[in-house]
Amino acid sequence: MSSDLPLALGIDFGGTSVKVGVCQGADLVEKAAPIPPPEFDGAAALIPEIEKCIASLRKKHPSIAAIGAGLPGFVNWETGGVHALTNVDGWEGVNLKSILSESTGLPCIAENDANAMTYAEWRYGAGRGREYLLAITLGTGVGGGLILGGELYRGATYGAGEVGQISIDYNGRLGGHGNMGALERYVGNSPVTDLAMEKYQSAGQSLSEQDCTPLKVAERAQAGDAIAIAVWWEVGERLAIGLANVLWVLNLDCVVIGGGMAKAGDLLLGPLRNHLNTQMDASFTDGLKLVPAQFSNEAGIIGAAALALDECQKG
Amino acid sequence: MSSDLPLALGIDFGGTSVKVGVCQGADLVEKAAPIPPPEFDGAAALIPEIEKCIASLRKKHPSIAAIGAGLPGFVNWETGGVHALTNVDGWEGVNLKSILSESTGLPCIAENDANAMTYAEWRYGAGRGREYLLAITLGTGVGGGLILGGELYRGATYGAGEVGQISIDYNGRLGGHGNMGALERYVGNSPVTDLAMEKYQSAGQSLSEQDCTPLKVAERAQAGDAIAIAVWWEVGERLAIGLANVLWVLNLDCVVIGGGMAKAGDLLLGPLRNHLNTQMDASFTDGLKLVPAQFSNEAGIIGAAALALDECQKG
Repeated sequence: MSSDLPLALGIDFGGTSVKVGVCQGADLVEKAAPIPPPEFDGAAALIPEIEKCIASLRKKHPSIAAIGAGLPGFVNWETGGVHALTNVDGWEGVNLKSILSESTGLPCIAENDANAMTYAEWRYGAGRGREYLLAITLGTGVGGGLILGGELYRGATYGAGEVGQISIDYNGRLGGHGNMGALERYVGNSPVTDLAMEKYQSAGQSLSEQDCTPLKVAERAQAGDAIAIAVWWEVGERLAIGLANVLWVLNLDCVVIGGGMAKAGDLLLGPLRNHLNTQMDASFTDGLKLVPAQFSNEAGIIGAAALALDECQKG
Repeated sequence: MSSDLPLALGIDFGGTSVKVGVCQGADLVEKAAPIPPPEFDGAAALIPEIEKCIASLRKKHPSIAAIGAGLPGFVNWETGGVHALTNVDGWEGVNLKSILSESTGLPCIAENDANAMTYAEWRYGAGRGREYLLAITLGTGVGGGLILGGELYRGATYGAGEVGQISIDYNGRLGGHGNMGALERYVGNSPVTDLAMEKYQSAGQSLSEQDCTPLKVAERAQAGDAIAIAVWWEVGERLAIGLANVLWVLNLDCVVIGGGMAKAGDLLLGPLRNHLNTQMDASFTDGLKLVPAQFSNEAGIIGAAALALDECQKG
């Protein structure tokens, strides 16, 4: 169905792996072997390796029309400059957009990785056709991105979408920025594991951390375990408070739930929907689509590539 | 300075008073005697009275080019239809925009009153020239409106900006929609009065409700009263949590504080700024303008009039 679409190359930066792939719309046509940043001494050594990878993919796919990179940190959308990357040192002030534009001669963009993932879900994924969308990723941390009025929303200094930092308790757990009650301290992987361990403990069952990962708790809930079901009910409640905070302010028509925890599916989405319905006015929830993400690990590559292509076709 | 601007008529609906005025930009050129809704039997009786008032103002100011109405409730911006008004019965389904357009022959708009106030502050007031702005009103309730990318932001069903409903404590006080920890239950007039009474009580001073209104507490703080200063510190902290929730998500460049409580000025803004700075990343707070509203009671009239004029000049 997307065979008429031009090809674009997407790059997804992570602390342990840089993933590069060739995309045609929602299809990941080819994926290169991931590049491990820890094996390279900073951006100066890593970037040439990425450029080699790009060159090799372009040989096979000469029609690649644009390149997009998603990075874990603050990226200045206008200039393409990177402020700082999470879990990767030596990137302050690096302008990946200019560097890649110059070395490849192709239109390039650099964007925050949560924004790239959001773009993928909106452009080709679970939130396709919606105008006011939040995509939230639930994993070790909690991140997010916004589409408002049918466009990626970045905010005054390109930092918008930090839903993991929203407070759901002003006297609560300390977040990573001196902030109290940060949502990611309640619905990230470890808080969910902690909650499950507590609940089993209270019921007289001592389960290990390994037995209480979100995935294990989901499996147990799917098998009918009442305690595991109660864990997801409570996680849904916590997440609902955080999402309601966004919904009251932005009156969205779609929320896409991604990240590892989205695999819990209706175990999480059911309670989440229930709590939203009981804590919000119907005009905010009636038309609200609440769905698991369509893409998983490949969302960053697909989104960065799609954004790059759309941008160069605009201009 | 604004003498070249065309005239527009603004209407500000309230439960006890409908205010009508003729505006030229930020200037309220003439204000009619307010109309009291309780003396009229529903919309059918009230609207002809408003039309009489409009006709009389147009006689004096024949160059009035557009009419804007701000209403306390959900207003469908596209159709102009009113869903329901807060504290005023009998408005469900009334299309004020069509009714006034037909009877006056002028371009008319109907908008939520918090949005109208926001528009006034952005277009002619304290937030002039900013691109990403929240205007929040602190009074009996807490409301707000948003300018994003230099435009009024309304959301999927025109309900955006309900900052008073943001939760700052998921186990906290019950809001008006079944929601827990609603910000307006912490920083509205009565919660501030309650907090002041508690703090004085703890210090062995029994003060009456009348002596603990936000205005009285502000006066006492300005005179150096340590307990009153501590009240504003805590109100600033509560408000900071609510605002930070918006700022993490939207990365704004301006927050305008209006409503009766804004009269506390730096007593509130000082602690608010302090708490925001210690609980947020500097990239979110460094360029953030945090200011009291420029307009007070007249904001609704000025904003509705300005929006009406800008809209008809667009089209």
